[in-house]
Amino acid sequence: MKLAKKTLNERSSHLYDVIIVGGGVGGLSAAVYLQRYRLSCLIVEKGRGRSFWMQDLRNYLGLPPDTPGRELLQQGQDYALSLGADYLRGYVEEVQDEGETFAVKVKVGKQDSLYPVFRSKYLIAASGIIDNLPQLEEMQNVYEYAGYNLHVCMICDGYEMSDKLCGLFVGSEAAINTAFVLNWFTPYITVFTHGKVEVGAEMRQKLRDYGYPLVETPIRRFLGHKHEMSGVELVDGSTVKLETGLVAMGSHYYNEYLKAIDLQWKGGNLVTDSMCRTSHPRIFAVGDLKEGVNQVSIAVADGTLAATAIWKEIRRASAPRRWEQNLIGAVS
Amino acid sequence: MKLAKKTLNERSSHLYDVIIVGGGVGGLSAAVYLQRYRLSCLIVEKGRGRSFWMQDLRNYLGLPPDTPGRELLQQGQDYALSLGADYLRGYVEEVQDEGETFAVKVKVGKQDSLYPVFRSKYLIAASGIIDNLPQLEEMQNVYEYAGYNLHVCMICDGYEMSDKLCGLFVGSEAAINTAFVLNWFTPYITVFTHGKVEVGAEMRQKLRDYGYPLVETPIRRFLGHKHEMSGVELVDGSTVKLETGLVAMGSHYYNEYLKAIDLQWKGGNLVTDSMCRTSHPRIFAVGDLKEGVNQVSIAVADGTLAATAIWKEIRRASAPRRWEQNLIGAVS
Repeated sequence: MKLAKKTLNERSSHLYDVIIVGGGVGGLSAAVYLQRYRLSCLIVEKGRGRSFWMQDLRNYLGLPPDTPGRELLQQGQDYALSLGADYLRGYVEEVQDEGETFAVKVKVGKQDSLYPVFRSKYLIAASGIIDNLPQLEEMQNVYEYAGYNLHVCMICDGYEMSDKLCGLFVGSEAAINTAFVLNWFTPYITVFTHGKVEVGAEMRQKLRDYGYPLVETPIRRFLGHKHEMSGVELVDGSTVKLETGLVAMGSHYYNEYLKAIDLQWKGGNLVTDSMCRTSHPRIFAVGDLKEGVNQVSIAVADGTLAATAIWKEIRRASAPRRWEQNLIGAVS
Repeated sequence: MKLAKKTLNERSSHLYDVIIVGGGVGGLSAAVYLQRYRLSCLIVEKGRGRSFWMQDLRNYLGLPPDTPGRELLQQGQDYALSLGADYLRGYVEEVQDEGETFAVKVKVGKQDSLYPVFRSKYLIAASGIIDNLPQLEEMQNVYEYAGYNLHVCMICDGYEMSDKLCGLFVGSEAAINTAFVLNWFTPYITVFTHGKVEVGAEMRQKLRDYGYPLVETPIRRFLGHKHEMSGVELVDGSTVKLETGLVAMGSHYYNEYLKAIDLQWKGGNLVTDSMCRTSHPRIFAVGDLKEGVNQVSIAVADGTLAATAIWKEIRRASAPRRWEQNLIGAVS
């Protein structure tokens, strides 16, 4: 059921098999599998994750390539609920390992917040990442194009950028190297630092060698209309014409709630085994939060793997079910 | 384009980046990614693979749980074609490793067959498995229920069998152990050997302990109507009432075409690394043919991984694309 402020108490004494932090595609896939394995789970979703912003999900088999990410999320949420999963809109503040169980403290509601604590045997960290975007005075101007033709994922949308005039928006000198992968799709690349990046002599020379202009003047706003970005206006009033763009400014990892637990990390990513198990035997990580390729298809498969591994363990620890009957009666 | 007997010559001199053996969900996902990575691929599909038989695909996020497998296959095929993939209905007879390339010999057409040879830099083995079914005199009687409520995959459909009278159809004594996992979903299990399995004293005792009847009389036919199996009639005329069934008779692996190549196997499965690469650096395996969990979501993710690894390698071996222009002209 969908939990809300008024119904929180109904589950406060329930021990879930699994609490899933994050209701993106990885978490939802795990929930569908867990419920179908006849286990109980609670999904805690803060809202507006990475796939929520995708306007066209172009490489997930089975869905038309113009399917918005939020449609997939809605389908998964509805299906998980129909299978008996619990779903709560809230922000996981802290996870405590109590030995046999986890205590998961959730902040519910932005005003007059409540802080219920839920318990589970296993935890799936599916809270993902969110891409950093250029910080302009008018952020609405950025949101107007981000996820449309201002992309954040080259694997997802490189094809859409093919041979187009492309702006590459970077937040560090290292990120400029993205240009030398992006040129597989288009060589018409202009690099924008928004005035925030120190670029060394070697990188400047490399960009010159490749013919990729470097624009260091800060950006005033994106130009365009109806979600179709057509260029950039700089603070000095000059403009750069573009047909598409790629933001490569790093990501924010939603992993703060795990900081009290000793886990193996690689940067912001959790290190996992082939079944998505972290270095903690009862914590799994799926999707963008774990090491690997950040794609919807991978997150969905991760959910399958984590749920399957958890089921296997809970099943093996449970008493076997016998058929209490007179054997002879079975064949009639 | 869709290749057929008449159009085979159009591609006979083309060197594909990748030939994908098998147009199931893993192969199609790989094709979509490869084409979107601006690589060229040919899918060779023999027809009627495992997911073709699935009547309801209940745990693949994004699709309604009553989606037939063949709908997903059709969508993937249409989309891959629209992205420029080639698709051929045929049976891969042999793959030869020529050093830099593979020569893939395909049998096209059941009558007046042609045997064209196609070449590629990489190979993706996506030919999967097919589940063995009980061999009855009237196989049509088996097909009437297989994939409906006579299931072949416990992970997929265990939930549908919950607490139902369930027939477990085995092809070996080892497969009887499936009962002791299946009992997570239902304890009302009757085991059928179809008269083909020698069952030892220890297993007989275990079945008795659990209360699971063992039926060794051969099966005459499945009972039921409109794809709803309701029991089994044995050759002695007696009947056993059932509400669902699980076939656990092993699988046939479509891997004969690889036998000339030295690869690392585990049973019928190819051993792969985390990107689905086999022990041969230019052969990848995806889906049920590789070791792992046999699920649609996994095969789709495998396609993503294999395509991404191949793209990375081809990209790195290619000349970089520069923007040939006067730099100053870029900022207008």
